[in-house]
Amino acid sequence: MQVMTFSPEPGAGFAVDGYARATCKIGVLCVTYGAGGHNVVNPVAGSFSERVPILVISGGPGEEKRKLGVLIHHQAKEIESQFHIFQEITCAAKIINDPRTAATDIDAVVRAVWLHQQPGYIEIHQDMVEREIEVPREVLEWDGTLAHAHSDPRKVEEAARDTTARFNRARKPAAIIGIETFRYKLTREIVELGEKMGVPCMTTVLAKGAFPMDHPQYMGVNIGPISPPPIRERVDEADLVLNLGTLLTDMNLGSRLPHLPREKSIWAVQNKVDISYHTYTEVTLRDYVKALLKAPLRQHHEKVEYCDNLAPQPPGDARQIQVSDMLWEVNKFLQGRKGYMVVAESGDMLFAGLDIKVGHCGTYLAQGYYASMGFGVPGALGAQIGTGQRPLILCGDGAFQMTGPEICHAPRYKLNPIVILMNNGGWGIFRPVTERQDLLALPSWPYAQLAEAWGGRGFHVQTVGELRAALAEADQIPSFVLIEVRVDPYDLSPVTIKYIKASVGQEQ
Amino acid sequence: MQVMTFSPEPGAGFAVDGYARATCKIGVLCVTYGAGGHNVVNPVAGSFSERVPILVISGGPGEEKRKLGVLIHHQAKEIESQFHIFQEITCAAKIINDPRTAATDIDAVVRAVWLHQQPGYIEIHQDMVEREIEVPREVLEWDGTLAHAHSDPRKVEEAARDTTARFNRARKPAAIIGIETFRYKLTREIVELGEKMGVPCMTTVLAKGAFPMDHPQYMGVNIGPISPPPIRERVDEADLVLNLGTLLTDMNLGSRLPHLPREKSIWAVQNKVDISYHTYTEVTLRDYVKALLKAPLRQHHEKVEYCDNLAPQPPGDARQIQVSDMLWEVNKFLQGRKGYMVVAESGDMLFAGLDIKVGHCGTYLAQGYYASMGFGVPGALGAQIGTGQRPLILCGDGAFQMTGPEICHAPRYKLNPIVILMNNGGWGIFRPVTERQDLLALPSWPYAQLAEAWGGRGFHVQTVGELRAALAEADQIPSFVLIEVRVDPYDLSPVTIKYIKASVGQEQ
Amino acid sequence: MQVMTFSPEPGAGFAVDGYARATCKIGVLCVTYGAGGHNVVNPVAGSFSERVPILVISGGPGEEKRKLGVLIHHQAKEIESQFHIFQEITCAAKIINDPRTAATDIDAVVRAVWLHQQPGYIEIHQDMVEREIEVPREVLEWDGTLAHAHSDPRKVEEAARDTTARFNRARKPAAIIGIETFRYKLTREIVELGEKMGVPCMTTVLAKGAFPMDHPQYMGVNIGPISPPPIRERVDEADLVLNLGTLLTDMNLGSRLPHLPREKSIWAVQNKVDISYHTYTEVTLRDYVKALLKAPLRQHHEKVEYCDNLAPQPPGDARQIQVSDMLWEVNKFLQGRKGYMVVAESGDMLFAGLDIKVGHCGTYLAQGYYASMGFGVPGALGAQIGTGQRPLILCGDGAFQMTGPEICHAPRYKLNPIVILMNNGGWGIFRPVTERQDLLALPSWPYAQLAEAWGGRGFHVQTVGELRAALAEADQIPSFVLIEVRVDPYDLSPVTIKYIKASVGQEQ
Amino acid sequence: MQVMTFSPEPGAGFAVDGYARATCKIGVLCVTYGAGGHNVVNPVAGSFSERVPILVISGGPGEEKRKLGVLIHHQAKEIESQFHIFQEITCAAKIINDPRTAATDIDAVVRAVWLHQQPGYIEIHQDMVEREIEVPREVLEWDGTLAHAHSDPRKVEEAARDTTARFNRARKPAAIIGIETFRYKLTREIVELGEKMGVPCMTTVLAKGAFPMDHPQYMGVNIGPISPPPIRERVDEADLVLNLGTLLTDMNLGSRLPHLPREKSIWAVQNKVDISYHTYTEVTLRDYVKALLKAPLRQHHEKVEYCDNLAPQPPGDARQIQVSDMLWEVNKFLQGRKGYMVVAESGDMLFAGLDIKVGHCGTYLAQGYYASMGFGVPGALGAQIGTGQRPLILCGDGAFQMTGPEICHAPRYKLNPIVILMNNGGWGIFRPVTERQDLLALPSWPYAQLAEAWGGRGFHVQTVGELRAALAEADQIPSFVLIEVRVDPYDLSPVTIKYIKASVGQEQ
Repeated sequence: MQVMTFSPEPGAGFAVDGYARATCKIGVLCVTYGAGGHNVVNPVAGSFSERVPILVISGGPGEEKRKLGVLIHHQAKEIESQFHIFQEITCAAKIINDPRTAATDIDAVVRAVWLHQQPGYIEIHQDMVEREIEVPREVLEWDGTLAHAHSDPRKVEEAARDTTARFNRARKPAAIIGIETFRYKLTREIVELGEKMGVPCMTTVLAKGAFPMDHPQYMGVNIGPISPPPIRERVDEADLVLNLGTLLTDMNLGSRLPHLPREKSIWAVQNKVDISYHTYTEVTLRDYVKALLKAPLRQHHEKVEYCDNLAPQPPGDARQIQVSDMLWEVNKFLQGRKGYMVVAESGDMLFAGLDIKVGHCGTYLAQGYYASMGFGVPGALGAQIGTGQRPLILCGDGAFQMTGPEICHAPRYKLNPIVILMNNGGWGIFRPVTERQDLLALPSWPYAQLAEAWGGRGFHVQTVGELRAALAEADQIPSFVLIEVRVDPYDLSPVTIKYIKASVGQEQ
Repeated sequence: MQVMTFSPEPGAGFAVDGYARATCKIGVLCVTYGAGGHNVVNPVAGSFSERVPILVISGGPGEEKRKLGVLIHHQAKEIESQFHIFQEITCAAKIINDPRTAATDIDAVVRAVWLHQQPGYIEIHQDMVEREIEVPREVLEWDGTLAHAHSDPRKVEEAARDTTARFNRARKPAAIIGIETFRYKLTREIVELGEKMGVPCMTTVLAKGAFPMDHPQYMGVNIGPISPPPIRERVDEADLVLNLGTLLTDMNLGSRLPHLPREKSIWAVQNKVDISYHTYTEVTLRDYVKALLKAPLRQHHEKVEYCDNLAPQPPGDARQIQVSDMLWEVNKFLQGRKGYMVVAESGDMLFAGLDIKVGHCGTYLAQGYYASMGFGVPGALGAQIGTGQRPLILCGDGAFQMTGPEICHAPRYKLNPIVILMNNGGWGIFRPVTERQDLLALPSWPYAQLAEAWGGRGFHVQTVGELRAALAEADQIPSFVLIEVRVDPYDLSPVTIKYIKASVGQEQ
Repeated sequence: MQVMTFSPEPGAGFAVDGYARATCKIGVLCVTYGAGGHNVVNPVAGSFSERVPILVISGGPGEEKRKLGVLIHHQAKEIESQFHIFQEITCAAKIINDPRTAATDIDAVVRAVWLHQQPGYIEIHQDMVEREIEVPREVLEWDGTLAHAHSDPRKVEEAARDTTARFNRARKPAAIIGIETFRYKLTREIVELGEKMGVPCMTTVLAKGAFPMDHPQYMGVNIGPISPPPIRERVDEADLVLNLGTLLTDMNLGSRLPHLPREKSIWAVQNKVDISYHTYTEVTLRDYVKALLKAPLRQHHEKVEYCDNLAPQPPGDARQIQVSDMLWEVNKFLQGRKGYMVVAESGDMLFAGLDIKVGHCGTYLAQGYYASMGFGVPGALGAQIGTGQRPLILCGDGAFQMTGPEICHAPRYKLNPIVILMNNGGWGIFRPVTERQDLLALPSWPYAQLAEAWGGRGFHVQTVGELRAALAEADQIPSFVLIEVRVDPYDLSPVTIKYIKASVGQEQ
Repeated sequence: MQVMTFSPEPGAGFAVDGYARATCKIGVLCVTYGAGGHNVVNPVAGSFSERVPILVISGGPGEEKRKLGVLIHHQAKEIESQFHIFQEITCAAKIINDPRTAATDIDAVVRAVWLHQQPGYIEIHQDMVEREIEVPREVLEWDGTLAHAHSDPRKVEEAARDTTARFNRARKPAAIIGIETFRYKLTREIVELGEKMGVPCMTTVLAKGAFPMDHPQYMGVNIGPISPPPIRERVDEADLVLNLGTLLTDMNLGSRLPHLPREKSIWAVQNKVDISYHTYTEVTLRDYVKALLKAPLRQHHEKVEYCDNLAPQPPGDARQIQVSDMLWEVNKFLQGRKGYMVVAESGDMLFAGLDIKVGHCGTYLAQGYYASMGFGVPGALGAQIGTGQRPLILCGDGAFQMTGPEICHAPRYKLNPIVILMNNGGWGIFRPVTERQDLLALPSWPYAQLAEAWGGRGFHVQTVGELRAALAEADQIPSFVLIEVRVDPYDLSPVTIKYIKASVGQEQ
């Protein structure tokens, strides 16, 4: 196990999330009681919300101090306050204060983390640290495997039969792949199922990357009403949409419910399968997919064309660069190269990233639902540790000012992301909808210089050609690289523009 | 009311705390629901713990979304989770979701913030934003005053009588001034009382600054067993120690209870007065001090000598600078200048700052008890907004890497702190007690360059003379100034050295 | 509205439950704060558990007393303790302490009581009693109707279609009627549906009476493995069992899950319909039944024979009477008479009552699941108030000693139940399974004399003939009547005997 | 240990309370989960409220059933609901479900019961019943003693010194003895202290019996403003009132705070001592009294005259008897006889009982504060089991109809109380203040006949002479005796009359 330190704590929290998110393994986050614990509430809430399995370990005051009845160093309302706070953002939380039950308590939290793919919390009493604990035989002899949720096999079978019948009756079925397929390590099975069915496969926003983007059946990201027209039309035409592992919430980048008619859709998620207006409970995605792989599904042979939201790139390399140019250039850059992953920060880059195409089994990560600013850089560092893939980070200047300086830790862990820092001089995504523009301005930082000072390489680019050249050079640089891309303050990514238009429309 | 923005949210939280801490007015912090609210848990817990009156206002999902039953953008376990979290770190929290009671609910939270001098929380439902609310006459006609806690006048009188008798019997009384005197705006009365009694006055760590440091009766900071010897001896000799507003917790920089024998001491704090082994409840510090000001106290005329923990400064300006040199130089700098305040970061600088002497009614701020890293720079920005005094910030490199970049916001708010950044290349305070030194190293940042890039001035100094010169120059610079002081990795402040020695001793 | 008083409070609680249970209207129970409220916890928990809609109104201390901070007359741990206790046994509970929201709070509790068919709780602050309250227009103009739960019409439709297909494929379908059909006033529709389907209809224990016992399709009570053999066999043969309103818990008089294979059964209860291994949520029983009434169900014409657990009655009127004789005699008595209802106490009589056949639309009541002793007499009084039917109460001596004396209130409310008090001198039902028989003995009471003293008529019978004669005479007596039937200490009802045998078998 | 059964559960609850209340030992109450547990909420709340140490043991569903997820026999909202309910009315509650911690959990509950002198609750999982548990050495080797609360010896000493100084300055001191003296088994020490001080000793209502009523210094019961005039005057004259173990709540039979000026009074209760306007915390009554016994208290020699609220008894034995006659006769009866205790029911008899004088170390019991109806008869049975003293129960007809029939259990436990049943035909105490008199009427019961039927002896008396004769005869009867005393419906006890007058006055 590798120990890494970050500063401040939110960076550590995002890094652990990035590690777990990219590897589907449990990441472990150690914090001090009080200021440390309170400072990771936000990243842990993000992991909870997007179902990333991490284990938070915190110290805690011992019995002696509790009995003293005085306030303890670093305390909130009560000594148990930090525990209560973590109960709100974890699937299991325990205070370890009894050597007789410590082993089974810890075991139970770890198992819950795996079962629910959400954070767990352990607070170890200061005076437990040196104590010997009772470890029952079943823990001592544990073989290291962690159980997933169980299905009722009769329900699985009926659900698969029901699905097969409907699928085989359908003339234009399609599949939307959700994040659970990735969390439960089902990517291989999903691809196999997609091929067996021969239908177009899309992903949701949160699940971008859960289906190989360069697979011939991959059609792109479904973002509901603001999807690329071919996707919207294909879904409208579908007489059966199979949603695999799609959380209801992550469909539209908003909180509106999806518009798929239920009689034409199937939803398999959160250990149940909804088919038309009825439900199979106690059916895990894992078991459902495996049952479908064995079912006599009729094979389609639909030809699928990948689509995104990018207009054709205008010609000319000396042009002032725009966000959409950056997306074109990154796509070109990635097309010929293996070993890269992409991490998109929250904000405009979250939307922009939807038009990135990572091939060659490269990972794609973003906080597609919780969308906390600050995830990008530290999350990418954690992800590189876990996967070895080199991250290409899409990040705005606002988010970079939050946690971007964590990049300074990259050299000593031999990490070398390429940060594409889109500098529009402020909180650009709010500019179209805010009256007081002055509240959105951000101070200017010498990003490229900073990169150099921190042991990386810095570039400052303003034209399409400069970016292309910088990327090409970065590919050869062994250290981390930061490319500051100066764009117009009002320039936004294609999806953001559609999203804002849709939101404003919705409110009127 | 001035609106300021910071990035990320923890900076905003510390800035509001600094404002309220320096001015004794209520600071207001606005955050977005979810990532925003979760990200200020740490600074708000610090305000709670050290009794700083701030009001947190968050948005919240409306009824429509709650009824949908789906997960909402930015959510933790339940829609009420953020509310539950803030219940743990505020003295009053309300969800505003009923136009009939909104006005009285908000009124109640604000009154509680003032009464307890702790944070309050208001979460405003999205669909309440445009609603007209009922405002009862008593709120409409409110004169803007907020009530402090009430005393029982008969208890106040008996406590003052009891105190007077004991004080007048004592031959060597002394006074220790605690943070409540400052929170409840009693500095003037405390000075008057100190002069009336004519006894030596010390402060606790958390209350440093609550008694004028250049007052002839001020003796310095009492840090329990590691106090400067004259202070320790004077307290040991005392036959009566009057503790005014001293929270039990902040005596020893640790969690040990103070060693003052109760039969020789009086504690007035948290609305009660303990005299010898008995207690007067329902006696506020405010009313107790006022009663003592009218009581027939015998006047002493003890000559008091100020003392700190600094050894005499070795001669020579070209020497490699040490932490103690910095303290000597800052003290000299401050001696002749008005309009400065000092803000000490957590870590070694929290201890170092105890040897700083701010005169001329300058404010001194530090998180003396909760001690979260990251308070210094943003806290100082908020404090300058509130008081107009120019902050001199003592800050280590570790803490600066957490929230120091917030200094980039200084220019646009016309703020001009002087940051003395003590760069020892890592988490120096843990070096004497940690095995894995590699976990304590920090990457190097080009601090002085950064300062220039952010619109301030940067200095890099290595000798005593260079620091003196840089400070003198900074005094004349209208913008903010950052002076990076390079010190030996194992150099620590005098109090830190004593503290670590004492802690290690305690555990063995 | 009629005000009645009982003594002590448990009697009042059971009476209100009996009223609501028999009429399907909301019963109202008023108690004093403290001893009064605490004393009805048991009957209210019973109403909660068996879904009887009652409203509990309690007083509560006012603000003045709360502020005093002293313990209040009749208090538990905290002033809010009684409220917390009732939160555990009601579907909605409110403290009425704000005149601005009082009307909507009360309205919300009443609506919840109706929606969930469970108790609600209102605690009215003492100082609210004389206050004028704001009543919003929608409450003022309320038309008196209370809403049932809503269905999703598309789910109803699909569920009905699914059901119809399966029903029409089935060759030997059967129906089991559960208590929800009665709570939601669907008896008429259920009978119509039963006739339309032409299949045998049984009830569960808790629902006995929900299907007319003298209807030609009524087959009797299904008690799972200890049912009368024809019922057990018919269910085993069924290729589809339609369970309408059957709570899972009340099938077997125990806690074992029912043994109906799910692929051959349909369960419509608690606003959902389970068909085979899938589920339709948001489908109320009411809407489901109405949809089935319109569906093209194939009609069966199965001839159904009513059956119970009674062996043929041995000849001879002068014989020492047994429990089974009593059941034979009561059945004969009821056969020719209208206007009677039957109420069975908990204990042996709960099981015995399953062999009673009430015809002529007479009500049958028992606490078939919660099974608290003491329900019988007061419950019957409440039920007679509500329905006007004369109760025939089956009650053991143990239960009678608990709340039987409430019968003394009958005369002044012009109530005239006939109590058949089966006196076996103790807690007979435990005799076969208890070592310490002495703990099961009960003192003897002069029941018949007591009845006379309380304004009723008392009989003491020992033979079959005597009981028959006493019943015949009781029929003519306008006042209440108590018939003490002396039976052997070890005599038990047929179902009890089977139940004990099955329980003992299960544990071994 | 003796096992007793009662019916229904409330009787068992009151009996256990009576046992513990009379003996100051822990009483144990076993109930079944659900109906049993819910049915003892009221008596247990009474024990909690009046600080009677009892241990409630309930069964509970096992893991198997919990996992089944179905509703369990006898359940409320959740399986944990009964546990939550008991948390509100006990000082410690645990669910026993882990064999590793079962022993220490049970040990902790028992210790808490003793420490707080309040009920504790243990719920034993069904599947724990046969399990072997770990018992740590300290539990195995426990010597059977249970600790009282600890004092801070320096506080005890200062409090005693402070008290002594004030007592020795006082010219007319007096003492009021409260219930804690009895609960903590300090009666002997209190008498010794009273004799050492030589001052008049009164008790509060709840503590009647805690100071021997026939002691020459005993002055009677202080009932605040409605006390007998000599008591009221003596307290008004007092320049120091020493309140020993007096709960603030039980002074005035109401909720008003006592009118003793604090500068002239001392209150030792609930582990603290209030002297004038200051407080000594962490001083137990036990340690305080022991310190006073050693302190140099000046001895007074005040001559004390016992007084009550009874007007002189009018002459004539053939008169229609009144409540006050009954009190006179009972006092005469008790004067010459040893071995009797008195138990007063709630209602008019709670007030009436204050004029009873039990001598010869006889116990006196009543629920003086919680005042639940129904305590009398079962409480007396428990008390006789515990003490062997024969109870003389004062009971109204209303309360007797609640739990009076429990007397039928007396013969088999060889208990022989004398019940004086004051029959005024209804809820007499409310008659002066209620408009709807019809709601207060109660049916008539043949009480004397019932007593005979239940194995006791019954008397019906109407004149003074008849009562005297019946009592004399009862004294000789070995079985229990019930004497029904028929009084006028509007006749009330002297204290009740004063109380109602005072209450009505207070509200106007």
